[in-house]
Amino acid sequence: MAETEKVEIMNFDQEGYLEDGKALVETGKQMAAMADKIADEGYDAIFLMGVGGTWDELMQLEYLMNKFGDKDLEVYLIHAAEWNVSGHKRMTEKSVVLTASESGTTPEVLEAVKKMKEMGIRVIAMTSPEGPIGQAVGAEGCVKMASDHGSGGCEKGYYLADCFGLRLLYRRGCFPKYDLFIEQTKDIWKDLLDIRKKFEPKAEELAKKYALAPYTMFVGSGALWGETILFAMCILEEMQWKRTRYITSADFFHGTLELVEKDVPVFLFKGEDECRKLDERVEAFLTNFADRTKDEDIVVIDTAEYAIPGLDDDFRVIVSPWILTILVTDRLARYYETVTKHNLKYRRYYHQFDY
Amino acid sequence: MAETEKVEIMNFDQEGYLEDGKALVETGKQMAAMADKIADEGYDAIFLMGVGGTWDELMQLEYLMNKFGDKDLEVYLIHAAEWNVSGHKRMTEKSVVLTASESGTTPEVLEAVKKMKEMGIRVIAMTSPEGPIGQAVGAEGCVKMASDHGSGGCEKGYYLADCFGLRLLYRRGCFPKYDLFIEQTKDIWKDLLDIRKKFEPKAEELAKKYALAPYTMFVGSGALWGETILFAMCILEEMQWKRTRYITSADFFHGTLELVEKDVPVFLFKGEDECRKLDERVEAFLTNFADRTKDEDIVVIDTAEYAIPGLDDDFRVIVSPWILTILVTDRLARYYETVTKHNLKYRRYYHQFDY
Repeated sequence: MAETEKVEIMNFDQEGYLEDGKALVETGKQMAAMADKIADEGYDAIFLMGVGGTWDELMQLEYLMNKFGDKDLEVYLIHAAEWNVSGHKRMTEKSVVLTASESGTTPEVLEAVKKMKEMGIRVIAMTSPEGPIGQAVGAEGCVKMASDHGSGGCEKGYYLADCFGLRLLYRRGCFPKYDLFIEQTKDIWKDLLDIRKKFEPKAEELAKKYALAPYTMFVGSGALWGETILFAMCILEEMQWKRTRYITSADFFHGTLELVEKDVPVFLFKGEDECRKLDERVEAFLTNFADRTKDEDIVVIDTAEYAIPGLDDDFRVIVSPWILTILVTDRLARYYETVTKHNLKYRRYYHQFDY
Repeated sequence: MAETEKVEIMNFDQEGYLEDGKALVETGKQMAAMADKIADEGYDAIFLMGVGGTWDELMQLEYLMNKFGDKDLEVYLIHAAEWNVSGHKRMTEKSVVLTASESGTTPEVLEAVKKMKEMGIRVIAMTSPEGPIGQAVGAEGCVKMASDHGSGGCEKGYYLADCFGLRLLYRRGCFPKYDLFIEQTKDIWKDLLDIRKKFEPKAEELAKKYALAPYTMFVGSGALWGETILFAMCILEEMQWKRTRYITSADFFHGTLELVEKDVPVFLFKGEDECRKLDERVEAFLTNFADRTKDEDIVVIDTAEYAIPGLDDDFRVIVSPWILTILVTDRLARYYETVTKHNLKYRRYYHQFDY
């Protein structure tokens, strides 16, 4: 391990990342304390609310809460723009909403939060208490990262959201190993650096091969599906202006497979939950039957190949999206940028003017 | 009206369609009778199950049942492949499943139905009682179209599914105008022919302009979102091997908008429900701000422009996907075929071999 630690990670502040990780564990305790307060007060349903990338990010928690939760736990992933026009028939003043906004200004979320607060609904937001959304939520409902060196994928957001959701599960008796999970992940940041180092040459190779492809497919499922959308839409579409097609392993066979042909790269994100069986069906199809140069354009990224020493097997499903996000949304994106020469911060439209 | 009736609809059997429509109203009564039986027996939750196109088709009913349903009505849209590996924590022996399979052989649905029947769950299937799925369901649960001349989009399936779902709503006191709706739609088939005739020149024009585009966007929302996916994935991807990007009006602004540029056609399917406001935001962006030749590649298909004489305004949301499917999945697809010279029945992989 001492050896790999010397390896450089391109455009990445390793020291800052470890510092962030340490601070994040403290912030996670705040999230858990908020969950405890809500468990004490009672609630009828949990709503996970986002737009675009935050919606995608919260999807893994929806998945986990449904996977581990009891039959009576109600969890709904809602899109703020849709909620603003449609509402939700299961939302009452006893409901709880978890949302997030890095900028603190996302207009759809701001509009929703204001209405929710008027309805007397408890809102927890991963956002700065100083921003417009933070002000609408009120400081008591805001959780902000104490330290953020800006390096990384979405794993920090996943960690915080999971601390909240898994703690709620724990309080219902559905995730009795909460404390063990927190204990086993407290130094995971170092492992996530090691995974980056291991993947670094692969990221470079994949970017050189595929970053200029005119159209690329991304297939995912289960706990990884949200991150699959996030990478394809919020990174490659928004930040690289690449044409992508994301599709679940389940639905891949119902239309999209016909687009598989020579020179169409297909990335399969293999997960570690019950949907892995569906991923394997896609993998078998791609490697055995597809009308294309074998292996040439098939990329399987399997989170199971990336160890987290000391982590119990039954926690792997929780960290699988953390692993995927550091591989693709962090590392692969950085290398795509070097090949496409398209700065990840360029936008044609977004935040360029009001619309 | 007498005049328009003489207009030809390309590759379309008008007489057969009206005959199918007449028979379909009878089949709809069977669906309503099944709903009545289930309402009499009681149920804890309704599951709408499909894969690919059938999943997309059932989405409009999920939308309607949530829109009109009371707070305690539980409706879940599930994908058969995912259910086969994950199950659903709210499904019990008191649950009811509505599914569909035109071929009667869809492997994921067959596997699921067998397991569900073993669990003692009531399954209603829009399929032939002779096929493998029909046999697994049992004849008493099967509903098959009495007459099918094969012309049309998905409106026949929408009609039958809606007879079932809206009748269940009626029995809960949530859709008191069920009988009026059935009465007002019993001759809708003639109106749907007239809409086709009106759209025919537009379909030809759109196909000539856009059928050869390498990449096309489709934006939809609300009651039209399922049909949006269905047309982009099951028609254009599967049957025309076209690269498409479908995105909700809500999420369009969170990544995909950056792909809007000159020579990328964007189809906006404007609906007639509360999400229309989100469609209008997309329309305003596309016409006012996008960095492209104005109007050149923006196609707005607005179901509100197609009248159904004698239909109450509050029923428009129900028929809006029926209208869209005849415009695009039926008419536009036929004209795409004439331009691409790609037969809608060709497949590279699907049903070509086992995988």
